[in-house]
Amino acid sequence: MASGQEARVTAAVLIIGDEILSGRTRDTNLGDIAAYLGVHGVDVAEARTVPDVIEVIVEALNALRSRYDYVITTGGIGPTHDDITADAVAAAFGVELYEHPDILQMMQAKYELTPARRRMARVPEGGELVINPVNGPPGFTIGNVFVLAGVPQIMRGMLQDVGHRLKGGAVTQSRTVRVEGSGEGVIAAPLEAVARAHPEMSLGSYPFFEPGRFGSNLVLRGRDPAEIAAAVGELIAALKAAGIADVAEIEA
Amino acid sequence: MASGQEARVTAAVLIIGDEILSGRTRDTNLGDIAAYLGVHGVDVAEARTVPDVIEVIVEALNALRSRYDYVITTGGIGPTHDDITADAVAAAFGVELYEHPDILQMMQAKYELTPARRRMARVPEGGELVINPVNGPPGFTIGNVFVLAGVPQIMRGMLQDVGHRLKGGAVTQSRTVRVEGSGEGVIAAPLEAVARAHPEMSLGSYPFFEPGRFGSNLVLRGRDPAEIAAAVGELIAALKAAGIADVAEIEA
Repeated sequence: MASGQEARVTAAVLIIGDEILSGRTRDTNLGDIAAYLGVHGVDVAEARTVPDVIEVIVEALNALRSRYDYVITTGGIGPTHDDITADAVAAAFGVELYEHPDILQMMQAKYELTPARRRMARVPEGGELVINPVNGPPGFTIGNVFVLAGVPQIMRGMLQDVGHRLKGGAVTQSRTVRVEGSGEGVIAAPLEAVARAHPEMSLGSYPFFEPGRFGSNLVLRGRDPAEIAAAVGELIAALKAAGIADVAEIEA
Repeated sequence: MASGQEARVTAAVLIIGDEILSGRTRDTNLGDIAAYLGVHGVDVAEARTVPDVIEVIVEALNALRSRYDYVITTGGIGPTHDDITADAVAAAFGVELYEHPDILQMMQAKYELTPARRRMARVPEGGELVINPVNGPPGFTIGNVFVLAGVPQIMRGMLQDVGHRLKGGAVTQSRTVRVEGSGEGVIAAPLEAVARAHPEMSLGSYPFFEPGRFGSNLVLRGRDPAEIAAAVGELIAALKAAGIADVAEIEA
């Protein structure tokens, strides 16, 4: 770690739901969470997708919450029998669930309190609520874990009550250099040379192929804006020195 | 397990790449792989997304390949320095990489063999090639692991050379009952009753909210078509008995 840099702060995303693993529903939450946390100086370092099976959720949650600074879960907090995220989080932390009076009151104002709906009022002991500005009951947080809805528009709403609770590090920034008309086979050597000169940064190559066009977007990510700027200059110079003409930084 | 049913055959998907974890690129491969494997009688039971860090890839791969019947990896097989999937797979299996003569010959016919391009010819000892019908070098398979490209159109092409190598179980089938105008709070009890009566099946509720419309799609999944049909009938009857009028099976 270069002197003066803050330590990296990390998170894992735990996506809970058979419907994602079956391919019936495509997850979009990981990308939204990663972008949101990135702005708050927290890097998503791993993601897992697990089925609606309590032992599997507990094991994944315990593995992730001990390894990363934060864990964000999505899914499994509705009223039906397959919504077992609260049970799994309580089991992982070794605490009981209780019906949170604020949630009961909130729901009572709107609906008849069926046993199924009461399930959504359950929060682990020691947990705090995460505001749901969209629809339905809130999420909750306990320890370093945030438990959010799976429905994307509700998840995005709840996320707005997460950022201010995070202790982020320096924000990871990225800049993109676009190469057109050259493949990765010729890009690789100059790219690797610049990557080796900047071990604190992450340099990646993301090729594109379109009818009549091909090339690669080279993404430079790091936490020190001055170092990123220097690396962008070095990369463009190294690519041109390797005979690659069509190179330019783009907004990405 | 009900008598006469075949054992469930499982797979994990390991998505490799910083660009997915940063939110810059949205993964679409998990859903495509799950749908493809489902047709071949293989259920995706877990998915992980990991960064371009060799120790992390090795650890995840070893955890997944010992736990599930198959592992499909995507990403990290290009020519650049951050493409380290082959290295990680070889390390996980404790074997060396070698340059596969068929790949070298294939590439030599098209390009100059730069050191970067030679990286793409590396296959672990004991591995077999997976045909790439789209563009660029093939993937490979070793043990119960299939190593595919990350670019979706290439990944989908390679997948066509995977199915015939799988020993699948009974294909999981699903049927969907749509409820309109009733929320999960009233659906939950009849749904749970039917789920309890069919412990070999998976019943899930996936609510939808649109302007002026709301309800839930209830998905019944299982491996015995006769049992699924019975459960669909029981669920519709139970929902109607609970006073829910707008209920019908849909194509989904």
